[in-house]
Amino acid sequence: MVDIGTQKMHDGVTRPLPPVILGKLGEDPKKKTLLIYGHMDVQPALKSDGWDTDPFVLTEKDGKMFGRGSTDDKGPVLGWVNVIESYQKTNTEIPINIKFCLEGMEESGSVNLEGVVRGRPDFFETNVDWVCISDNYFLGKSKPCVTYGLRGQMYFYIEVVCAKQDLHSGVFGGSVHEATVELSHIFASMVEPNGKIKVPGVMDQVDPVTDEELETYKTIDFSIEDFRGDLAAAKLTEDNKADLLMRRWRFPTLSVHGWQGAFAEPGEKTVIPGKVIGKFSIRLVPSMTFDHVEKAVVSHVMKVHESLGTQNEVKCYLAKKPGRPWKAETSTPNFQAAINAVTDVWGVKPDLTREGGSIPITLVFEEVTKKSVLLLPMGSCDDGAHSQNEKLNRINYTKGMEVFANYINRLGKE
Amino acid sequence: MVDIGTQKMHDGVTRPLPPVILGKLGEDPKKKTLLIYGHMDVQPALKSDGWDTDPFVLTEKDGKMFGRGSTDDKGPVLGWVNVIESYQKTNTEIPINIKFCLEGMEESGSVNLEGVVRGRPDFFETNVDWVCISDNYFLGKSKPCVTYGLRGQMYFYIEVVCAKQDLHSGVFGGSVHEATVELSHIFASMVEPNGKIKVPGVMDQVDPVTDEELETYKTIDFSIEDFRGDLAAAKLTEDNKADLLMRRWRFPTLSVHGWQGAFAEPGEKTVIPGKVIGKFSIRLVPSMTFDHVEKAVVSHVMKVHESLGTQNEVKCYLAKKPGRPWKAETSTPNFQAAINAVTDVWGVKPDLTREGGSIPITLVFEEVTKKSVLLLPMGSCDDGAHSQNEKLNRINYTKGMEVFANYINRLGKE
Repeated sequence: MVDIGTQKMHDGVTRPLPPVILGKLGEDPKKKTLLIYGHMDVQPALKSDGWDTDPFVLTEKDGKMFGRGSTDDKGPVLGWVNVIESYQKTNTEIPINIKFCLEGMEESGSVNLEGVVRGRPDFFETNVDWVCISDNYFLGKSKPCVTYGLRGQMYFYIEVVCAKQDLHSGVFGGSVHEATVELSHIFASMVEPNGKIKVPGVMDQVDPVTDEELETYKTIDFSIEDFRGDLAAAKLTEDNKADLLMRRWRFPTLSVHGWQGAFAEPGEKTVIPGKVIGKFSIRLVPSMTFDHVEKAVVSHVMKVHESLGTQNEVKCYLAKKPGRPWKAETSTPNFQAAINAVTDVWGVKPDLTREGGSIPITLVFEEVTKKSVLLLPMGSCDDGAHSQNEKLNRINYTKGMEVFANYINRLGKE
Repeated sequence: MVDIGTQKMHDGVTRPLPPVILGKLGEDPKKKTLLIYGHMDVQPALKSDGWDTDPFVLTEKDGKMFGRGSTDDKGPVLGWVNVIESYQKTNTEIPINIKFCLEGMEESGSVNLEGVVRGRPDFFETNVDWVCISDNYFLGKSKPCVTYGLRGQMYFYIEVVCAKQDLHSGVFGGSVHEATVELSHIFASMVEPNGKIKVPGVMDQVDPVTDEELETYKTIDFSIEDFRGDLAAAKLTEDNKADLLMRRWRFPTLSVHGWQGAFAEPGEKTVIPGKVIGKFSIRLVPSMTFDHVEKAVVSHVMKVHESLGTQNEVKCYLAKKPGRPWKAETSTPNFQAAINAVTDVWGVKPDLTREGGSIPITLVFEEVTKKSVLLLPMGSCDDGAHSQNEKLNRINYTKGMEVFANYINRLGKE
């Protein structure tokens, strides 16, 4: 249990952070070692968000196991534990040494995990041969994949203050430059409804698309029409497979998550919020850098604010530690073992995919271990990680565990 | 106690609405009758909104009585009760008959009150000579006023649905036309940060400003600099007294209150909301009509939505019954009694003011009673009705009650 310090919470109370758990199973010098990463914290969830069942009681229905964290990432972590238990209960020797690194702050940007990984060379630099992270999803609902790329993330706040407190909209409406209105104008200036980022400079560092890369999208099993139908979206931002996958994997996106400080409950409150915090994030791709993006965003927001002439108090800043994008070499024995394990268990060669999401620690593992890192997903695309009614299919869970065991056995032959 | 029916709440449960209370004190046919209106419901308030004290425990400090409803409108209602009690305890005959109409749904648009007022001619049409409403505020902090105009209100929702549920912004970012982004564009198209309404047609019916009206602003005691300082706003939308008062009283305004369905809590949730409801209201002035404004707003929102090309599901509609604007004749004996009562008690002639806020029932009282209706405020401009730390100054409360009694005595001589 590695202490990662405390955090002053939003209620003003300082609480200890959940420790990082480091575990070793086997230290046989004749065996190679796999480092497994997972996380046990989850996104916020309330029944009133629109869940059909209590988000914190695992509920199985029609082969689906519903519950917050079922797919992201408690299910996969438990899968590894079950696999090890099955070796033990059948008195089967595990052909490799295993190390675990489990954390409880992933959904908050893996607070202090980088420090742990860099600060414990005995654990992470020495005696690690491969790294496996199971914290993402199939591209579709049923065809498995192995993942070699991730987007990074920068989460920003824009604070706008127009008055020292909330104001009655009848008494004060028309006299102040409303914070919510200024924020609407700022957001509208940053991104088009079709997702195209309008902040000058943000696209500058994005790697150009090569013909070779374009070629890879052709064979990937992905139905854009199924994807659209599952979301119940009338129209997607792109109308063909390659363009849509590229929008999700290899181009940056800007998402507007919400407003803090404005009226957000049901009903009609007639207030002019005195202070509103707009929240948005940008997903990063190779070779975007934090500094460049932060400067571009902050300078754009302040420029737009100036041009609006409100003289409101406006601040734009990073809300948490950003996460870098990642792209791996897939010809390594680690990748080959995973690809072959999936092929054995599912009877189909997995697609090699990238992911739109962010697992910031991936890059740190790669840097510190100097070994091949891969993502071996257990869940499907429609699991609803971060959403209402998050679930993990029972078949994904059972086959996923078979894949883990097959992968361990294959690594044991390396 | 007049039953006004039930309402299906946002939690799905149908509950009885608080009844309207009608009261009579005295039915002496030789005396004339004053109808007094007040309300006992309040705006929502949570300590966590930023209150220094429990909003539902009246707390006095430095001559200020803090608590939700202290000024809007429990304080004034209690004031009338105290005044009557003082007549009774001193064995003084009340020189007029008094009728009370107290409701509990004012902050939700006075649900069904209009029906009660129109449906009980025995109470409202017969034997009413004057109407007095104490549910507004001084223009400044200390100089009293009597009020002859109010803005109306129309409260709108804009629903934008981009997907059937919330989406992980990493996995889905870049593929959908985000509801929050479309809403930002729609809001930005409706109003400038300086409050100028951009919805075509909304300004068409606004009465033109006459030279005579302009003249009246000159003598009103109002410091634009104090007003700005109290709000801690760096800059107001207008830089002179008359223009600012007109923006607050006699021009319509559009306020954006918030988003329902997006992430609104502290912290960093990385979600693309599937459905967001944007909430805004327009304050109406003579001679704007509901039909015209509603058509203009809905047609503009749908036109902007079409032009954005998202094919999201977008709806714009009135969230509750709208309230009409009101402007009264000030030469009536009712107004003169109120003006003279204030002059007696405060030693200064009150300003004749209009109000930016809405008390929809005012017009209904005027129509049904066919008598002079006036607003006689008790609280000050900085009381923070609808805001955090709402308060009523003790001096306003005590002098306010003296004004009520003096006004009753003067009406008794009519």
